[in-house]
Amino acid sequence: MSRLTLAELASRFGLEQVGDGAIGIDGVCTLTPGKPGHLAFLSNPKLRPQLAQTQAAAVIVGKRDAAGIRAGLVAADPYFAYARIAALFDRYREFTPGRHPSAVIAADATVGEGCAIGAHAVIEAGARIGAHCYVGPACVVSRDVQIGDHCRLEARVWIGPGVRIGKRADIQPGAVVGSRGFGNAPTPQGWVSVPQLGGVVIGDDVEIGSNTTIDRGALDDTVIGDGVKLDNQIQIAHNVRIGAHTAIAACVGIAGSARVGSRCMIGGAVGIGGHLVVADGTVVMAGTAVTKSLPRGVYGSIMPVMDHRHWRRTVAHTRRLETYVERIKALEKKLDLSQPPDEAPGEDDV
Amino acid sequence: MSRLTLAELASRFGLEQVGDGAIGIDGVCTLTPGKPGHLAFLSNPKLRPQLAQTQAAAVIVGKRDAAGIRAGLVAADPYFAYARIAALFDRYREFTPGRHPSAVIAADATVGEGCAIGAHAVIEAGARIGAHCYVGPACVVSRDVQIGDHCRLEARVWIGPGVRIGKRADIQPGAVVGSRGFGNAPTPQGWVSVPQLGGVVIGDDVEIGSNTTIDRGALDDTVIGDGVKLDNQIQIAHNVRIGAHTAIAACVGIAGSARVGSRCMIGGAVGIGGHLVVADGTVVMAGTAVTKSLPRGVYGSIMPVMDHRHWRRTVAHTRRLETYVERIKALEKKLDLSQPPDEAPGEDDV
Amino acid sequence: MSRLTLAELASRFGLEQVGDGAIGIDGVCTLTPGKPGHLAFLSNPKLRPQLAQTQAAAVIVGKRDAAGIRAGLVAADPYFAYARIAALFDRYREFTPGRHPSAVIAADATVGEGCAIGAHAVIEAGARIGAHCYVGPACVVSRDVQIGDHCRLEARVWIGPGVRIGKRADIQPGAVVGSRGFGNAPTPQGWVSVPQLGGVVIGDDVEIGSNTTIDRGALDDTVIGDGVKLDNQIQIAHNVRIGAHTAIAACVGIAGSARVGSRCMIGGAVGIGGHLVVADGTVVMAGTAVTKSLPRGVYGSIMPVMDHRHWRRTVAHTRRLETYVERIKALEKKLDLSQPPDEAPGEDDV
Repeated sequence: MSRLTLAELASRFGLEQVGDGAIGIDGVCTLTPGKPGHLAFLSNPKLRPQLAQTQAAAVIVGKRDAAGIRAGLVAADPYFAYARIAALFDRYREFTPGRHPSAVIAADATVGEGCAIGAHAVIEAGARIGAHCYVGPACVVSRDVQIGDHCRLEARVWIGPGVRIGKRADIQPGAVVGSRGFGNAPTPQGWVSVPQLGGVVIGDDVEIGSNTTIDRGALDDTVIGDGVKLDNQIQIAHNVRIGAHTAIAACVGIAGSARVGSRCMIGGAVGIGGHLVVADGTVVMAGTAVTKSLPRGVYGSIMPVMDHRHWRRTVAHTRRLETYVERIKALEKKLDLSQPPDEAPGEDDV
Repeated sequence: MSRLTLAELASRFGLEQVGDGAIGIDGVCTLTPGKPGHLAFLSNPKLRPQLAQTQAAAVIVGKRDAAGIRAGLVAADPYFAYARIAALFDRYREFTPGRHPSAVIAADATVGEGCAIGAHAVIEAGARIGAHCYVGPACVVSRDVQIGDHCRLEARVWIGPGVRIGKRADIQPGAVVGSRGFGNAPTPQGWVSVPQLGGVVIGDDVEIGSNTTIDRGALDDTVIGDGVKLDNQIQIAHNVRIGAHTAIAACVGIAGSARVGSRCMIGGAVGIGGHLVVADGTVVMAGTAVTKSLPRGVYGSIMPVMDHRHWRRTVAHTRRLETYVERIKALEKKLDLSQPPDEAPGEDDV
Repeated sequence: MSRLTLAELASRFGLEQVGDGAIGIDGVCTLTPGKPGHLAFLSNPKLRPQLAQTQAAAVIVGKRDAAGIRAGLVAADPYFAYARIAALFDRYREFTPGRHPSAVIAADATVGEGCAIGAHAVIEAGARIGAHCYVGPACVVSRDVQIGDHCRLEARVWIGPGVRIGKRADIQPGAVVGSRGFGNAPTPQGWVSVPQLGGVVIGDDVEIGSNTTIDRGALDDTVIGDGVKLDNQIQIAHNVRIGAHTAIAACVGIAGSARVGSRCMIGGAVGIGGHLVVADGTVVMAGTAVTKSLPRGVYGSIMPVMDHRHWRRTVAHTRRLETYVERIKALEKKLDLSQPPDEAPGEDDV
């Protein structure tokens, strides 16, 4: 994208312009230090004091900051406006349609108009790829896959046989979608592999991060709803269902048949146990071990960092909690203080 | 696989038939809701009430449920029987032998009879691949690798130089077997890379999940026993040894030179420290931090999910455990209650 | 590497020789049991008793052990000397310069002298690769990437557009460097993708493990300092900065904009929260949840493994800590024991 004027951006995105509309914008930048000829944004009110010092040519702000800038754009949601404008300058996502001669595309695969198929990509028999898709270098799209319009498979992505993906998916390198679920039947002679015959169904506007893995279902499908955003190195086991617009941070593991609701926010490195249900709109803090189904709410479980000496003593005391509780009871008995009736840990505590 | 009759399945797998042997079976299905023309199974006794409602044409059951079905197969282990029958319908694992013209196969590599080598696969010099193997698209089999008969490398698998793999391995996309172990020598100028000259030896009937990584040994080999099942995104460091028929769930990390026994079950996201020994038959619950060697048993360590307010208060109290213990001691002193003799946390607590 | 004599090794590496210099060395080996014709090393004083039994032809030792060996080399740092000598026998890292005919190299990409470009590798437009690099099979080097001299991209590595890498990088299979950061703006209609326009800058002598992922910055760069060693399956989010000579073990996740100092040691499976700062020289034990910025020190947080019955009771008691604290207070009140003034958990505890 070559230079645009502030007035052109205001007009294109329906934003109010402040200051000289002829200012040229060559790209976007951070508010501090900012960059001449570039456009920054202010979304976090804590950063307001930085407005005065920025070297940015113009700033996207909310209504209440419009008076505080010399030049810029006023938006109801400055971060959202920034996201849309910044996309104009995301030059590495532009592509020229075509098929690299080294790509292997099955004769009966269908590739829509305006697609780019990269070097050493493989599109297997029966696959159907929508229009205006980018299938980057070394991607493998297996048999009978269906992919909607305007999808991007960055590079080295594997889409397993029969997987169905909606429109505008953005899949990062190394992602694996539709691998065999981890199903094995115990026998006296060892584990016997249980065929995984289900598929994976992915909605529209889904992002899948680098080296994230999504297994196919055992018999039914694994399902990822519309607008779900998955960060890197997430593991989603067979038959998991994730509701629309849920965002999941990196390194999360979700065990088989778990159901995560819509519009949830799942922090990094969370683990969710098999067959559990997490309600719509639930927030799970980073690192939490989800061991039971969760009604809507906000949840945590990690023990945060401590100095190692403090930590070691805390570990030792935690392990002895039972004896401390006995000692409290002995004290209460000696003093004839009444005890709560039910003190035995229940079976359902873990 | 086209349609089979119930009688054909009974005969082929040596199972007792119930009801009309002419019933046609087009595939397998879940018990609920079930699918006309398909075969379901009942393994979990809790699901017995679903037998009456299933739309499945027939059901695989154990002896005690044989009277409860109109049509089906009776097996000593219904889940195992299902696994074997379902494999007949796993059509995406069928392949036609041959070498894709885009595959790069070294002149002195050996590929056994009945193998399929996929598009853009690479088989390097000195590699030997057994008979009836499937090496999928974009797999890389490095120099001097040995792979037994009937192995499946789904796609985008990397097998490092000199790695040895037994028969019937099933390796999912993105798996890395034989990468450099993480060995670095500290010097005042920084870390110096220590060459990793060992290999990886993998037994028969091993499953390796998507994006799982297994490092080569520093001098000796990293060893994965017969029948080991590894889920996705597992990390196995150099010189680890895993005993036969152990199953490991996703996202587990095993540090260097640890030894995990045979027939263990390791839950998801477990971490096992370097040089530790986990005894045969041990069960480690999901998320556990294994910080010491474990005799045979069942182990856990995670703090399970709590409402975030409860969690925050619990964290605060846990951090202050030491002061609470002091307060219990002060109370005991005041009341002349005797204290256990050894209260100081030992050095070996972590 | 063919056989070398002990005298040749002593001369080449400037080490003192003990015993017969004509002894032939065909490779390196462990001290126990050792291997005839091979060279072992003794670095850990605890292993000193093994010196007498080793079958190794010679041993690298420190000064104080020189008298205890029949033949060997004396080094100020035996492990470091071993690392350098062992590299002579790391035959799988030797390569013959050249370009495999199946590699796709853009006309305007620059590849330095003495490089090997492997089968099905892709080097995109504008990429510049230094001299004596090894770019293994199925690697993808995207547009405008810069890579210094003597780098090794083992296989199936993806380097994203515009990424800059210093000299002597060692990047293991499946690594992803420069993928899209996880930036999404919330709107009432769902998440909107925020373009990630920053790059990744990697210093000299950096190791990146298998399936490790490093995201590009949102606007500024993600930065990995000189001599940083990253193990397998590490996730580094956008705008993270890691100081020189820091070593990070496998399965660590570092959230966006966190800064990790130089010469830190981060244990396996540690999680570091977004925007936090970890001081130079800090040690974080395996599994720790870093939830606040850390001054220089040693830190931990995990609850180590327990027998599952002990663990279940400990969990139950931990969840009830608040009630136990209340009971201690009631006891103190009854006995008129003074209480510490500030017992309410602070807001900043998590």
